[in-house]
Amino acid sequence: MASGGPEIEQLIQLMARLPGFGPRSARRAVLQLIKKKEQLMIPLSAALDRAVVAVRTCEVCGNIDTASPCTICADPRRDSGILIVVEDVADLWALERAGVGQVKYHVLGGVLSPLDGVGPDDLTVDALVARAHEFREIVLAVNATVEGQTTAHYITDRLTGSGLKVTRLAHGVPVGGELDYLDEGTLSQALKARTEI
Amino acid sequence: MASGGPEIEQLIQLMARLPGFGPRSARRAVLQLIKKKEQLMIPLSAALDRAVVAVRTCEVCGNIDTASPCTICADPRRDSGILIVVEDVADLWALERAGVGQVKYHVLGGVLSPLDGVGPDDLTVDALVARAHEFREIVLAVNATVEGQTTAHYITDRLTGSGLKVTRLAHGVPVGGELDYLDEGTLSQALKARTEI
Repeated sequence: MASGGPEIEQLIQLMARLPGFGPRSARRAVLQLIKKKEQLMIPLSAALDRAVVAVRTCEVCGNIDTASPCTICADPRRDSGILIVVEDVADLWALERAGVGQVKYHVLGGVLSPLDGVGPDDLTVDALVARAHEFREIVLAVNATVEGQTTAHYITDRLTGSGLKVTRLAHGVPVGGELDYLDEGTLSQALKARTEI
Repeated sequence: MASGGPEIEQLIQLMARLPGFGPRSARRAVLQLIKKKEQLMIPLSAALDRAVVAVRTCEVCGNIDTASPCTICADPRRDSGILIVVEDVADLWALERAGVGQVKYHVLGGVLSPLDGVGPDDLTVDALVARAHEFREIVLAVNATVEGQTTAHYITDRLTGSGLKVTRLAHGVPVGGELDYLDEGTLSQALKARTEI
């Protein structure tokens, strides 16, 4: 296996631990890095060094940013009064890419999962309940899985009596999706929630 | 798009240029890196820094290593007299993983391709011809593509008269492969080159 010295082998092993990479594709990526040393390897090395120093978790919402409070929490234009609750930072970024508007976020850090030993104390539910009163609507944008829905129910319970409007994302046909490939549950929900044209 | 500060965005853009990654998977990988800062991001950053300093191309064979001549060229046990000619460092590493024995290598750095403007001077053919006399057999392990075979013919021509034995890899059914999925060319070659059991 030692075709290229211990430094290269170690780099391959670390790259192979990234999601989407295995030992073979990590080796290809490292070869590409080495071949494009000036254009890719040195800039990537520098970018990683900078990120290691700069990256932190926002103490308000749980977003990952180079500032805390993060750019979103510190943005004074985000005053729509809507707080979107997501499981993970990746979901927050996906909603931002979708351009959902001048909203704020709360990252739970996971979902309730008794089987995996994840209880309410492992998530940022207390922090959510503590800051919820600053908003007029809480949108529960958790995944449409069993764990996600259980978590949504739990949060709704905790917010009962606060007088807040609690909503969830709509179920339906994905834009560009073909009916033929959709599961029955989604189709049935999409029919129930049909809208007039 | 700026969900996480310029340092994070730049890291994502650089990761997206690795083979096997696109913008979406690079974002996922960067999130994973940030979440596993101690176990993954800091070690990867350090490994990249070390590799940037240490990695070089072997001046003898074209392999990528942290020494030049590389570990393979400097290995005194590799005295079988067999030189395997490959297109790319990735091919060299693949052959090493296959454990082909105590051989040496020569990396061409590509294949002849008039359409892409790649001529003999862009490859290390001259260096190959210069060192070929140190060996008793030259194995042309170029890819079984049109360009690969053209390159193999060109090299064979250049070595004509040197008295060297020039060979190529066998064509046939891949180990574990199903006949049904193989192309006709491979099947016909495999039948022609059949061996007695």
